[in-house]
Amino acid sequence: MVGGDAAGMSAASQARRRRSPSQLEIIAFERSGWVSYSACGEPYHVAGYIDPLERLVARTPAAFAEMAIEAHTRHEVREIDLDARTVTVENLREGQTSTTPFDILMIGTGATSFKPSIAGMDLPGVHELRTLDDAKQLRAIVDAGPGNAVIVGGGYIGLEAAEAFHHRGWQVTVVTAGASVLDRTLDTDMSGRVIESMEAIGIRVVTETKVRCINGSEHVVSVGCEGGEILPADVVVLGLGSRPVAELAADAGIDLGPTGAIAVDDHQRTSAEGVFSAGDCAETMHRVTGRPVNYHLGTIANKTGRVAGINIGGGDIAFPGVLGTAITKICQTEVASTGLRRAEAEEAGIDAVEATATGTTTAGYWPDATTMRIKAVAERGTGRLLGAQVVGGPGAAKRIDVFATAIWNDMSARDLAWTDLAYAPPFSGVWDLIHIAARKVADAAS
Amino acid sequence: MVGGDAAGMSAASQARRRRSPSQLEIIAFERSGWVSYSACGEPYHVAGYIDPLERLVARTPAAFAEMAIEAHTRHEVREIDLDARTVTVENLREGQTSTTPFDILMIGTGATSFKPSIAGMDLPGVHELRTLDDAKQLRAIVDAGPGNAVIVGGGYIGLEAAEAFHHRGWQVTVVTAGASVLDRTLDTDMSGRVIESMEAIGIRVVTETKVRCINGSEHVVSVGCEGGEILPADVVVLGLGSRPVAELAADAGIDLGPTGAIAVDDHQRTSAEGVFSAGDCAETMHRVTGRPVNYHLGTIANKTGRVAGINIGGGDIAFPGVLGTAITKICQTEVASTGLRRAEAEEAGIDAVEATATGTTTAGYWPDATTMRIKAVAERGTGRLLGAQVVGGPGAAKRIDVFATAIWNDMSARDLAWTDLAYAPPFSGVWDLIHIAARKVADAAS
Repeated sequence: MVGGDAAGMSAASQARRRRSPSQLEIIAFERSGWVSYSACGEPYHVAGYIDPLERLVARTPAAFAEMAIEAHTRHEVREIDLDARTVTVENLREGQTSTTPFDILMIGTGATSFKPSIAGMDLPGVHELRTLDDAKQLRAIVDAGPGNAVIVGGGYIGLEAAEAFHHRGWQVTVVTAGASVLDRTLDTDMSGRVIESMEAIGIRVVTETKVRCINGSEHVVSVGCEGGEILPADVVVLGLGSRPVAELAADAGIDLGPTGAIAVDDHQRTSAEGVFSAGDCAETMHRVTGRPVNYHLGTIANKTGRVAGINIGGGDIAFPGVLGTAITKICQTEVASTGLRRAEAEEAGIDAVEATATGTTTAGYWPDATTMRIKAVAERGTGRLLGAQVVGGPGAAKRIDVFATAIWNDMSARDLAWTDLAYAPPFSGVWDLIHIAARKVADAAS
Repeated sequence: MVGGDAAGMSAASQARRRRSPSQLEIIAFERSGWVSYSACGEPYHVAGYIDPLERLVARTPAAFAEMAIEAHTRHEVREIDLDARTVTVENLREGQTSTTPFDILMIGTGATSFKPSIAGMDLPGVHELRTLDDAKQLRAIVDAGPGNAVIVGGGYIGLEAAEAFHHRGWQVTVVTAGASVLDRTLDTDMSGRVIESMEAIGIRVVTETKVRCINGSEHVVSVGCEGGEILPADVVVLGLGSRPVAELAADAGIDLGPTGAIAVDDHQRTSAEGVFSAGDCAETMHRVTGRPVNYHLGTIANKTGRVAGINIGGGDIAFPGVLGTAITKICQTEVASTGLRRAEAEEAGIDAVEATATGTTTAGYWPDATTMRIKAVAERGTGRLLGAQVVGGPGAAKRIDVFATAIWNDMSARDLAWTDLAYAPPFSGVWDLIHIAARKVADAAS
């Protein structure tokens, strides 16, 4: 296993369930100091919701050792030699390099944060939030505060980091080049409410603005924006998205796909015999378009790692693909999305329509009712559901799972509009907003 | 329209959208004092969560009048003459009876509470909770309390009433002949938690005990149980379930189905030409068994009423059937169910297996994590999903909609176990408990 987070260790565990130590020796090398952890929980450790940091670790190397899986942290694989069937590994603690043979290789090198090439990017005080090490450092900074935090980028991690710093009394500004926040998963008419709920508690959100430079000599002191504004900053958190770590595989001669991630078949096999890949570094197939995609989501890493491990262990299982379903909660506003947005559908050559419905999370007369908005996307003519976005108060976002299940089954919007969903006043109106959005998009598609 | 609640008035509204007043005159007769109201919200008015009572009314007769729909409350249809094409209607306010002709008739007579034939059932202080009038009376009693309330029956309405009285400081005892509560929709191993959460706040739950008599001379004073216990009672609420009101239709020669409710086809047409029926009084088709069923749920009444109205208005739409999806929240425990329980499946001739998974509503490390339990039922061999039950803390129960959507699509449990559902720590584990339950039942079925 090259890489010991979700994909690698899911694969290791599944392979071990099917092959005894005498049949299969399993060794995992992980660059960071941790294996098998929840990256998605990191912003909540920074915020102080979840302590200690170790609660985010699903299994330690010691726990894996009990399963006869060797997990080496702070070990980075530097080279894969497919002819010799060896990997060259550097022990980052001691600086030594050694060679380990393999019969089967599983590449789970994950993703790395995208870093723009602007001045000051390497100054102390400029952080990512990707690994548990990052989370530990940011938590120490939060604890030493408060001060001014600038978040560069308006994606999930950036906004979750913004909320974490705000929660601990920091002055927080989010700067994004996009027209709105979360603009890789939500349309602008859906994400406005996220900005409103951030601004309502005092987080400043600056859209359509690029960061020009990060200023400071020994430590970051400010962020310079295009347009001229200088934002004071005691810490900068980069949340500009991530790219797959595929160089190691590419250097070994393993094919990458059109997304730049490692190409795999539905058994997670790469182009090289006996070499598997899963997680953020590998492509997956989008069920709606049939095209390869590369999403960096814990759900997909766990699932594809599981598939790789079952197949490594002698099983025969195909990964059925993804919809890119994602969810988060930003300052009491829940957001989620699945499948394609209308623009994505049209880019994929599908003639698509969309419709938006606004309602409440519960019966309208329920004391805790909060507003909710659902956008549904369907294919013109057939009415086949293609995607959905949900924004709203408590209870809103997990409704995305109904759309994900519907799209998974190639369901038509018209059919979903009649599905027997659950109703009681604390949970929805008698017609759930899912029904209403589905009916509206079915009408638009016909 | 015979009956002016969910089914009748949904039908009236849909028919009016398609036919102008010059094409179709629409008159609705409703026995109670209200039309188009949310019966499901009544326990929450009794509890004092929702005020005034009128908030439960979706549309008043005046609002219907603006749509050119005549809605007469306190008017009861006494006879349907299919040959003469007339209904005989009693004005309950004034005691007069008159005759109204019809071309098309829609029967939405609903359901009535089941009343056992035991002594004292008609004493003052013995109430149902079905109509808004019932809710109004119970609210007045609650406000005049506190005292001792005895709830007879452990179904949804009984438990919701129990919580309402408890919330207002009453001593509450629930007596049910069943082995547990909610035993028409949940298996005993799932419903135990509901009893625990009721008892935790001081509601007494007496199972496997029939009520023998209701005692009192001018007003109820106590309830006598089989086994001899006498429960003091200032009010008794009956929650023993309900039966369809189908006598009027049967007397007119309209066919009833095997459930005792009015038989209809998928267009909501009865056996009589030009006569439709929808809502609690009509049968519907269960999608899993293909058999007629008669559920009394607001969702189904609204949907079947809509179908009837579209067809009355000249449209052509088939009702696609039901799964019997239901949900409620009892004292912080959310419960929901859809499709078949294992016993129901076997009764329908389907060889079924079940599996139960226990986990948390959020990531396990999330501060608000509460436990949740999901039972899934699947067909042996094929793995086709047949049903599911969910019990748990906040966020648990609406997960039933994913199962409902999956079952609606004849999905296999194995396929659901890989579906791209949403994950973030405030919402679920990286494998949602839905996945885990689906995987377990798929394994059991194979």
